[in-house]
Amino acid sequence: MSDAQAQEHEPSGLNRWALRIEYDGTGYLGWQKQNDGVSIQSLIEAAASKLVRNRLVPSITAGRTDAGVHAAGMVIHLDFPDDAPIDARQIRDGMGYHLKPHRVVVLEAAQVGPEWNARFSATWRSYRYTILNRPARPGLMENRVWHIKRPLDVDLMQQAANHLLGPHDFTSFRAVACQARSPVRTLDVLTIRREGELVMIDTKARSFLHHQVRNMAGTLMMIGAGLWPVEKMIEILEAKDRCAAGQTAPPEGLCLMDVGYPDNPFSRT
Amino acid sequence: MSDAQAQEHEPSGLNRWALRIEYDGTGYLGWQKQNDGVSIQSLIEAAASKLVRNRLVPSITAGRTDAGVHAAGMVIHLDFPDDAPIDARQIRDGMGYHLKPHRVVVLEAAQVGPEWNARFSATWRSYRYTILNRPARPGLMENRVWHIKRPLDVDLMQQAANHLLGPHDFTSFRAVACQARSPVRTLDVLTIRREGELVMIDTKARSFLHHQVRNMAGTLMMIGAGLWPVEKMIEILEAKDRCAAGQTAPPEGLCLMDVGYPDNPFSRT
Repeated sequence: MSDAQAQEHEPSGLNRWALRIEYDGTGYLGWQKQNDGVSIQSLIEAAASKLVRNRLVPSITAGRTDAGVHAAGMVIHLDFPDDAPIDARQIRDGMGYHLKPHRVVVLEAAQVGPEWNARFSATWRSYRYTILNRPARPGLMENRVWHIKRPLDVDLMQQAANHLLGPHDFTSFRAVACQARSPVRTLDVLTIRREGELVMIDTKARSFLHHQVRNMAGTLMMIGAGLWPVEKMIEILEAKDRCAAGQTAPPEGLCLMDVGYPDNPFSRT
Repeated sequence: MSDAQAQEHEPSGLNRWALRIEYDGTGYLGWQKQNDGVSIQSLIEAAASKLVRNRLVPSITAGRTDAGVHAAGMVIHLDFPDDAPIDARQIRDGMGYHLKPHRVVVLEAAQVGPEWNARFSATWRSYRYTILNRPARPGLMENRVWHIKRPLDVDLMQQAANHLLGPHDFTSFRAVACQARSPVRTLDVLTIRREGELVMIDTKARSFLHHQVRNMAGTLMMIGAGLWPVEKMIEILEAKDRCAAGQTAPPEGLCLMDVGYPDNPFSRT
């Protein structure tokens, strides 16, 4: 087998592209490819494959979002075959075309080196969790928010949130299925603000545990609703027990907003 | 026939309620009842009817939105049968329940006198037209925005918009099918601003002609895209000819935001 053939079957990463993508997670299985339905990853890889005569285009994401979770600025990378000439506009517009009618779009694309990795090169991720806080269920915001009728006190939520900032063992906020080696994470931002009927929880960290943002949101809701005192957040954190914290807030309120890299591939384009 | 029976068949308006409603217009025929599909009005009247043992509950709206147009704070009134006791919470929550799974909800309800009319008592309406201005088609904002790829210059759009402020003959921005007696309307607000990839056109007037906001948006787009000079707005207005102006912007970018009344029925609740 010649070297060229070997490269074709095992991508050397020399034709690696970083993509910023947006998707409405409603009705999909989440990022990860699975056998029992449509995932964002399967849609993305199928659309990329169409650009290179149906050859395989493997993908890696900065964040494996769960079913129903949205993304406004997710970053992934794709390894196109080395011998397939491709450019940023082809990827953005061509994949956008092949992704129709799905609510998944490519915002931008930039070529990166073989050492660059959407998951491992990322130095932070930011998420927003949105609550619709009013008596009436969502009309315009259906599938985008968690609906809480009881009035939430944003100041109490912020006081509780402040206890979570910095490095902590987040075992109490970690899904049982979480596969991360360490339960320690460092929360850089956890800000709660109200805009009319919406309560927005914005958070940023190098990385998050599985369900961490949704579990924090579920706990902050209990405190904002006055069902738990602010100080309970300290107890929950110290308990290192998932059962101590609040419910896992539903996926539809969660949106991955942005991913940061020391050398942002998109600012170079 | 007793007086009570006569009242039952012809509502005296003594059991009139003002409602603030929100809806996602996607997939509906618009406000007005029609024979060939589902309208917001037919959904609302059917849900209201369920609260009073299926008796008729006629409705009047402050704005008859077209198919695909949304509302964040539309005001309507309903005439419940005089002998049907009902309260604000029943209307909001009961109708919200019966309106499921449609993306139509009742935000609040307040009893009003027989002289109060959602349409004729209104002293202003405000609308927002939203453009997604970027290369990639909408993912999260599908059915909510008009997608324009060509970069828009918001300053040019605002300069042109300023020519439309105040009282004018808006014949050039009026649908051919418009049934209003006079083409003269007074525009109180027409503000264009950018928030990232979104360009928002906010407008307010006592009332608007049919398609007026969408026709203004279509014309402002041409000027923002640099296809027409700012001064063309003056010519278009003076032409008093629908053919002089730009295209009718698509309905999905339009949302009725609010309706004003001298004596706001909701502030009393």
